[in-house]
Amino acid sequence: MSLSNSTREKLQQVSTPTIATCLFKKGLKNQFIQEVKPLQLGKPTMVGEAYTLRYIPAREDRNPITVFRNADHPQRVAVENCPPGHVLVIDSRKEARAASAGDILVSRLMVRGVAGIVTDGGFRDSANIAKLAIPAYHNRPSAPTNLTLHEAIDINVPIGCGGVAVFPGDVLVGDDDGVMVIPAAIVDEVADECIEMTLFENFVLEQVLEGQPIIGLYPPTNENTLIDYEKWKMEQGK
Amino acid sequence: MSLSNSTREKLQQVSTPTIATCLFKKGLKNQFIQEVKPLQLGKPTMVGEAYTLRYIPAREDRNPITVFRNADHPQRVAVENCPPGHVLVIDSRKEARAASAGDILVSRLMVRGVAGIVTDGGFRDSANIAKLAIPAYHNRPSAPTNLTLHEAIDINVPIGCGGVAVFPGDVLVGDDDGVMVIPAAIVDEVADECIEMTLFENFVLEQVLEGQPIIGLYPPTNENTLIDYEKWKMEQGK
Amino acid sequence: MSLSNSTREKLQQVSTPTIATCLFKKGLKNQFIQEVKPLQLGKPTMVGEAYTLRYIPAREDRNPITVFRNADHPQRVAVENCPPGHVLVIDSRKEARAASAGDILVSRLMVRGVAGIVTDGGFRDSANIAKLAIPAYHNRPSAPTNLTLHEAIDINVPIGCGGVAVFPGDVLVGDDDGVMVIPAAIVDEVADECIEMTLFENFVLEQVLEGQPIIGLYPPTNENTLIDYEKWKMEQGK
Amino acid sequence: MSLSNSTREKLQQVSTPTIATCLFKKGLKNQFIQEVKPLQLGKPTMVGEAYTLRYIPAREDRNPITVFRNADHPQRVAVENCPPGHVLVIDSRKEARAASAGDILVSRLMVRGVAGIVTDGGFRDSANIAKLAIPAYHNRPSAPTNLTLHEAIDINVPIGCGGVAVFPGDVLVGDDDGVMVIPAAIVDEVADECIEMTLFENFVLEQVLEGQPIIGLYPPTNENTLIDYEKWKMEQGK
Amino acid sequence: MSLSNSTREKLQQVSTPTIATCLFKKGLKNQFIQEVKPLQLGKPTMVGEAYTLRYIPAREDRNPITVFRNADHPQRVAVENCPPGHVLVIDSRKEARAASAGDILVSRLMVRGVAGIVTDGGFRDSANIAKLAIPAYHNRPSAPTNLTLHEAIDINVPIGCGGVAVFPGDVLVGDDDGVMVIPAAIVDEVADECIEMTLFENFVLEQVLEGQPIIGLYPPTNENTLIDYEKWKMEQGK
Amino acid sequence: MSLSNSTREKLQQVSTPTIATCLFKKGLKNQFIQEVKPLQLGKPTMVGEAYTLRYIPAREDRNPITVFRNADHPQRVAVENCPPGHVLVIDSRKEARAASAGDILVSRLMVRGVAGIVTDGGFRDSANIAKLAIPAYHNRPSAPTNLTLHEAIDINVPIGCGGVAVFPGDVLVGDDDGVMVIPAAIVDEVADECIEMTLFENFVLEQVLEGQPIIGLYPPTNENTLIDYEKWKMEQGK
Repeated sequence: MSLSNSTREKLQQVSTPTIATCLFKKGLKNQFIQEVKPLQLGKPTMVGEAYTLRYIPAREDRNPITVFRNADHPQRVAVENCPPGHVLVIDSRKEARAASAGDILVSRLMVRGVAGIVTDGGFRDSANIAKLAIPAYHNRPSAPTNLTLHEAIDINVPIGCGGVAVFPGDVLVGDDDGVMVIPAAIVDEVADECIEMTLFENFVLEQVLEGQPIIGLYPPTNENTLIDYEKWKMEQGK
Repeated sequence: MSLSNSTREKLQQVSTPTIATCLFKKGLKNQFIQEVKPLQLGKPTMVGEAYTLRYIPAREDRNPITVFRNADHPQRVAVENCPPGHVLVIDSRKEARAASAGDILVSRLMVRGVAGIVTDGGFRDSANIAKLAIPAYHNRPSAPTNLTLHEAIDINVPIGCGGVAVFPGDVLVGDDDGVMVIPAAIVDEVADECIEMTLFENFVLEQVLEGQPIIGLYPPTNENTLIDYEKWKMEQGK
Repeated sequence: MSLSNSTREKLQQVSTPTIATCLFKKGLKNQFIQEVKPLQLGKPTMVGEAYTLRYIPAREDRNPITVFRNADHPQRVAVENCPPGHVLVIDSRKEARAASAGDILVSRLMVRGVAGIVTDGGFRDSANIAKLAIPAYHNRPSAPTNLTLHEAIDINVPIGCGGVAVFPGDVLVGDDDGVMVIPAAIVDEVADECIEMTLFENFVLEQVLEGQPIIGLYPPTNENTLIDYEKWKMEQGK
Repeated sequence: MSLSNSTREKLQQVSTPTIATCLFKKGLKNQFIQEVKPLQLGKPTMVGEAYTLRYIPAREDRNPITVFRNADHPQRVAVENCPPGHVLVIDSRKEARAASAGDILVSRLMVRGVAGIVTDGGFRDSANIAKLAIPAYHNRPSAPTNLTLHEAIDINVPIGCGGVAVFPGDVLVGDDDGVMVIPAAIVDEVADECIEMTLFENFVLEQVLEGQPIIGLYPPTNENTLIDYEKWKMEQGK
Repeated sequence: MSLSNSTREKLQQVSTPTIATCLFKKGLKNQFIQEVKPLQLGKPTMVGEAYTLRYIPAREDRNPITVFRNADHPQRVAVENCPPGHVLVIDSRKEARAASAGDILVSRLMVRGVAGIVTDGGFRDSANIAKLAIPAYHNRPSAPTNLTLHEAIDINVPIGCGGVAVFPGDVLVGDDDGVMVIPAAIVDEVADECIEMTLFENFVLEQVLEGQPIIGLYPPTNENTLIDYEKWKMEQGK
Repeated sequence: MSLSNSTREKLQQVSTPTIATCLFKKGLKNQFIQEVKPLQLGKPTMVGEAYTLRYIPAREDRNPITVFRNADHPQRVAVENCPPGHVLVIDSRKEARAASAGDILVSRLMVRGVAGIVTDGGFRDSANIAKLAIPAYHNRPSAPTNLTLHEAIDINVPIGCGGVAVFPGDVLVGDDDGVMVIPAAIVDEVADECIEMTLFENFVLEQVLEGQPIIGLYPPTNENTLIDYEKWKMEQGK
């Protein structure tokens, strides 16, 4: 079951905190990829299904610079096979002392229509990647080639990334706060609920900026809040 | 004894390093909140008395999403009661894996005239908060709702924040370097001394940019330095 | 043997990841200063020979504010003696809880023609330093005076900085990813090889943006790649 | 409602992993105090209600050595007032660079009949404390007096300790693995369930040591397992 | 190709530092599992081929306590299938806040003839495991059930453990210093070289305890050293 | 000025916490080497003047295994030149992923009459070193040869060790809590004061074990305490 266009569009309009709260209500409390941030703030929200790449620590004899001459090298295979609209998610074991990838591979992903790239390590050529249209998330810039500390070993298996379980097909959503992982099976309902939550939060924020106190408003324990909200929704044409 | 307008204005004109050096001379060496930075660089200097909020680790049975329906929830009470001109300082135990607060609460604080907000954890909706006029300081963005890892437990008690003791009424000053905590009892003298130190540092910086060597100038061990400084002050009309 | 103008100019045109890969091929895998970043993105590439300053932990009785009145204080001596075109590199033991230096000293280095400054600690007055023309690299802003935790003890001895050995005369290159350390003895050959690698990477990136797949192109295992590259070079007039 | 003798005795016979699993089943997943271990292995299991002490970072002017002359100093008051049979739990903010307490205070607690002491910092005089009959848990030995980094500020308020919420009256159980925190309201049912779980685990361990495979046995999905268990219990006279 | 009895016996007589130096000479500098130690000092040296188990972060909906009722659960399958004489190595992502396994599973491994167990997380029931004959290595004791933070996902794939690449069939050697990983292809030559190195180190240590200086002796740059060594070997009957 | 026998003997009878409190009173609050512990508990107290060795990060081309053939290698020179009765203190930059030294070098130091060895890294052959009479302190065992990550670069210069400044000639005292550094200039007065403090603490501990409350006793704010103490001293013949 793949991500529908409708759900994708909904998720592009909601924020990672809203998704986090929605998942919290469902008992999923550990879906935010920790210690990972966008290379460039202010890009459009990233949405896509996870296509994963797993790194293990590099052993010197297995990782000379020549390994990339091998057309089957998993890193290169992943870059050529991650489906358009998906997000390449790399398990770098939170190790950013060497790069997970650089601008050439990220550019190739972008040209291929991939929706984004996430590592819990670091990217090299970070200034160039920041300027690309494709959203990219990492821990920090890292100049050393990935062979220094990483060996790509597996494609599209369940991984950990930033302390979160990521299964192939899970949906990743990224904004300036970072990246949330939505289990594939519930992505449609999460998107729907988040759209509704977002609408209410927009209403609340507007009320707050007009001077309303939080208590009774957020959450709407004062009965008038929901009446006002319904009125507001009508005025907004929602 | 509250913060006078005159002292507030002085502190708005000095930098956190100047305050740090001033406090160092008085034997206070641990007043810089560590690992905390502004969400947005270049805002006006934050100055205000500390109004504190203490978090402890969340226990699942005590922290369902419904707790916010309670009008007495300490986080919401703090947001509605932090006095205008004060800074809300949150002891999040340096735990940024879940949010300390989000844009709705920070907006409410801003509307209420609060001077700033500081946590040694992280804020959610960080891009929105960054755009608000109210200065906000944290460790890093964090999408998960604070109930995931935090329970607000106490208001306006002495706390630790970023490794620094913060007592209610202490004065916090924040700029692009971060946040300094000035004990309430000495805030007036610190402000006065910092104004004088700042004037001298401005003079020194001007001299340095004109090509003067550091030695003899900073500190002014060369007797001519102080003569030049007095002349410079007169020229500046200070 | 000092850094030639020609090598300096070459290094100004290449990136730290390219240098990292070049050094990796030569068996040098740990030349990237970890956890250190520019105070301001987008500055010209920093290139210069290392002039080092070593800090040890401060002991209270040896480090009152008055020590700077001593014209022989190693920090001040280093600032006045670091040769133009060199980079002042400070071993701060990865300790950023107090500053390694502030804007006055960094301004003096700039006026003196120093090529840059690097610490594995933090700078104070970070917003001012960020605006200066001289590139500066650190871990994070830090308001406390360096006497709080640091005592400058040695000038121009071999040091560790961000986990990397730095010998006086080694060449440091810094861009938005961070800082690489090139051993003095091989700097000319590294510069030459990096110029050639950069040219090829530019070609590759252009091909990728035009839709070429990575495999066969990078590295150029497809024989046509090298033919195309030679053609491209001629077209570029290189 | 205080801890009954019967429940105390039950908890003295069960292990912290058994309690952790029991609480996990009830949705409480974060009750193990992290990074804290016994000063001496092999002591009897510690059981007692929490009596808490909260530390904040020390400010130099408030914490000269003379503060202990004050008979109301919260650390000393806590030591004299923690009820017999309770456990003194100290929130040291995971800061072990200075001591939470030393052998004199711990000896006093022991003489007063206190059931144990836990800090997420460190104890000084650790070799002496290790030899005392009272169980003590910390992160690591730490010689510096607690005034160096800690100021005792509050007694018997809810705290965090090792990342866990501890409310006064919660029951702490400690063995060689470390310390679990059981919410006061459920301590009786937890003790009962753990006694039963322990009995079954003893049976399982015996079976395993006799050569039985895990699958079908633990958990007892093979129906014969439960039959064998009932038989074993009868043989044991349980 | 499996580990021969002869090589196993040789490795049982050498230390992890000797193996580390031997591998260093071959260019393998990262084969020591970091931050992992024996639960009990002084056990016989552990030697065995790696049989691996990979954990990812637990997602709450996938990891209720009931999952262990599934006879195919990878953790339980691994415990029943790790071949005798092998070492079960668990990639716990350096996460010791929940257990990797407990005494029942480790007992089962012991009964089955498994040579040892290693995790870069922690074990529960650590005091019991410490008393078992089977060597066990971890970071620290951890009471919470592994379902709290871990989901076993893969058996006998290449993993990272304590920052080291471990491929199925690699040979692990553990003593009181910790655990070394020897690539399968070179295990015989490493064992041979280490036996010879150990003999020489024993000679050196004896000389040192008799008062010989290090220089000229270790390494044996003084020609007499090798003569004395040959004589010593003859005396030892080696 | 060297350490007198009389002062050495006094320091052998006092504990590191007593020294820490004594130095705290003199304004020296950072003299405890952090994150360093004895390889073996229960050894006699280590006392000796610091003889220092400074390591920087290893660069691969400078650190093949053959470097130890050089009779001038600083590590080997230090081992042969550290004066009897002194303590060899190694600045390993808190890096324990490779060894600072092994049992052969530590044995040589012991044979040469050196009083102890301290590193803020780790030792290899830790079980052997633990059995030697010479006290040794480190962070944790570490099998890899020091060349993997360390290059010995300087002998007997001021260093940092475990976050503390250590100057050649400073006196180190180590017990089961860890290691304190006493500035050379005040070692005699510290020893004298600690002897007196220890006597009083022994008295206090005896009183506490007999049931006396802390308040009024420690510190002796109750006037009877000092009278009792004088009586006790006479009884003890002190």
